[in-house]
Amino acid sequence: DTVFNENPHRRYNILTGEWVLVSPHRTKRPWQGKVEKPFIPLTATYDKSCYLCPTNTRMGGGQNPDYTTAYSFVNDFSALLSDTPSGSVDENLLQAKSERGLCKVVCFSPNHSLTLPLMEEQDIEAVISLWQKEYKELGELPYVNHVQIFENKGDTMGCSNPHPHGQIWAQESIPQEIAKKTKNLGDYWNKNKKSLLLSYIEQELKLKERIVIENEHFVALVPFWAIWPYETMIVPKRHLQNITLMTEVEKTDFAKTVKELTIKYDNLFSTSFPYSAGIHQAPTDQKNNDEWHFHMSFYPPLLRSATVKKFMVGYEMFADAQRDITAEQAAQSLRELGNVHYSKL
Amino acid sequence: DTVFNENPHRRYNILTGEWVLVSPHRTKRPWQGKVEKPFIPLTATYDKSCYLCPTNTRMGGGQNPDYTTAYSFVNDFSALLSDTPSGSVDENLLQAKSERGLCKVVCFSPNHSLTLPLMEEQDIEAVISLWQKEYKELGELPYVNHVQIFENKGDTMGCSNPHPHGQIWAQESIPQEIAKKTKNLGDYWNKNKKSLLLSYIEQELKLKERIVIENEHFVALVPFWAIWPYETMIVPKRHLQNITLMTEVEKTDFAKTVKELTIKYDNLFSTSFPYSAGIHQAPTDQKNNDEWHFHMSFYPPLLRSATVKKFMVGYEMFADAQRDITAEQAAQSLRELGNVHYSKL
Ligand SMILES: O=P(O)(O)O[C@H]1O[C@H](CO)[C@@H](O)[C@H](O)[C@H]1O
Ligand SMILES: O=P(O)(O)O[C@H]1O[C@H](CO)[C@@H](O)[C@H](O)[C@H]1O
Repeated sequence: DTVFNENPHRRYNILTGEWVLVSPHRTKRPWQGKVEKPFIPLTATYDKSCYLCPTNTRMGGGQNPDYTTAYSFVNDFSALLSDTPSGSVDENLLQAKSERGLCKVVCFSPNHSLTLPLMEEQDIEAVISLWQKEYKELGELPYVNHVQIFENKGDTMGCSNPHPHGQIWAQESIPQEIAKKTKNLGDYWNKNKKSLLLSYIEQELKLKERIVIENEHFVALVPFWAIWPYETMIVPKRHLQNITLMTEVEKTDFAKTVKELTIKYDNLFSTSFPYSAGIHQAPTDQKNNDEWHFHMSFYPPLLRSATVKKFMVGYEMFADAQRDITAEQAAQSLRELGNVHYSKL
Repeated sequence: DTVFNENPHRRYNILTGEWVLVSPHRTKRPWQGKVEKPFIPLTATYDKSCYLCPTNTRMGGGQNPDYTTAYSFVNDFSALLSDTPSGSVDENLLQAKSERGLCKVVCFSPNHSLTLPLMEEQDIEAVISLWQKEYKELGELPYVNHVQIFENKGDTMGCSNPHPHGQIWAQESIPQEIAKKTKNLGDYWNKNKKSLLLSYIEQELKLKERIVIENEHFVALVPFWAIWPYETMIVPKRHLQNITLMTEVEKTDFAKTVKELTIKYDNLFSTSFPYSAGIHQAPTDQKNNDEWHFHMSFYPPLLRSATVKKFMVGYEMFADAQRDITAEQAAQSLRELGNVHYSKL
């Protein structure tokens, strides 16, 4: 629809129930603002001052084993603690309650320089297996009702150690982003007895406008309502509530999709593409959660080049999310990029 | 309550209905991540290459008049346009609609280097008068139901021109942040026939723990549910739906409060403190909007120093907002800071 390729409009996010303002006519706006430092590729496989490398001493004093595959441990500076005393504040308009939980760090590889796009497929599978184990074990703790798996990649995204790693924050409450999605997935499920995301990817696979990668078991696409310039979402073609329900072949395809997508990201601006990625899946609150359909989202800040990012500031903080390039343009750029990492060409 | 000064907990935002995770025990976490470039103070009163300085040619080709006080014009790269053709997409799970609007730029002063904390009180009053005029005039346009006034200060906050200025985005739809607040202000109003924010500042003025500034007509405080490390909110002591309803003395006090608060911000880390600030007030949608109580919020990213900021990334994007220092600690630091700008000491 050319009206929407060229004119300001708002799009609706069926998962969160929120809207994003899209201004496609504004892509040619000049940029005189902040430029990020260009990324300098890492090459060392081991760094003796890195607190995530095998055998090194961590900031909290513990020592890493000589691990050879994906490895996790309790965060030395956890935002959530398992022994938090319970309590609440309920004084008129002041409302608060204690929160128990546990934070873990997941090292993707013993190799200090190996980001996901540079890892072998089977090593990414090992990361996914560890995510599955953690989701299950943390989810079984009596005080954990939700397990959030995520990665902050690159210092632009607040990552304080370049050794490739992700995090897991498990907690008592259902976080807001999950609550919104549970509501919308649930409404659709109750009405249609079908997964909302299943219906959505069926529609997208027919239109093909926003698909980036498709293989036997997974689809990676730029959602119609994407906020970040090159935001994407990896969705399994089967209605799976959480990542532990994948078959072995599905897990292989998931690893393949993650690798292919992150290679495309790196290739887009010939840099180690920064992003925050996260897996949204069913809460571990003992409820039925049939409506849930797990997906992994990537929120990357870069807009025009390796050094110019999109700022979610003033208007976005006070009013609505806003973007310039359309989801369709972003999907096309990503789709057309090669599957071989630029550093290997 | 010491339980909440030292232990992880969640706090409830009575305006948006959302929760923030607070981890007070984590303030001593070392930071090995990204540091921002230190700010170099501007000194030139005029910059011939600045497209906001008086008499200069703008990027869009127009020429600025030789303005001597706060001055506004239509943004040369507006995200919203007044002539957008109307239309909508409603194809199964894809929902979008056209959006009309208007974007303006507000130069605070003809002086290229004069940020709000460095301006004279009566010159800040001139900015407020211009905000009032714009809110009224834009709000009267038939296709404008909401007027968002905001400022992105500093390149860390995506500001692309150091000449002190703010923006106004006026539009057809009610943005989400406003819709949430309208709901919660409305629920309280319907139940108590009293402004929620009036009740809230009464409670805070008794407790005094989170107050930063108080004068005859305004309060500046760190809200109980603040997300950003040094987030604050300026609230009029009278129940005023929008900024045009202030008396002249109230306007003077508002200007005074803005100046004092932004001086404290600059003094905190001896830098030109970056932030996004915005005024939330009644929509201009011809509804009654009695429940509305205008307020100006400041969302500053700095956490520990002029160069170390808080990143709202992974967990915050996928789950809930999160902070380390408590609102009470932040309020105390700001309260204790002097009212004379550090550059003048
Ligand atoms: O309009 P500007 O100053 O060019 O741009 C800045 O403010 C806008 C409104 O908050 C944002 O959308 C942009 O990302 C930001 O860089
Ligand atoms: O835990 P890290 O890597 O030290 O910290 C990073 O991720 C956290 C979780 O998204 C954020 O709260 C921090 O602001 C960010 O710098």
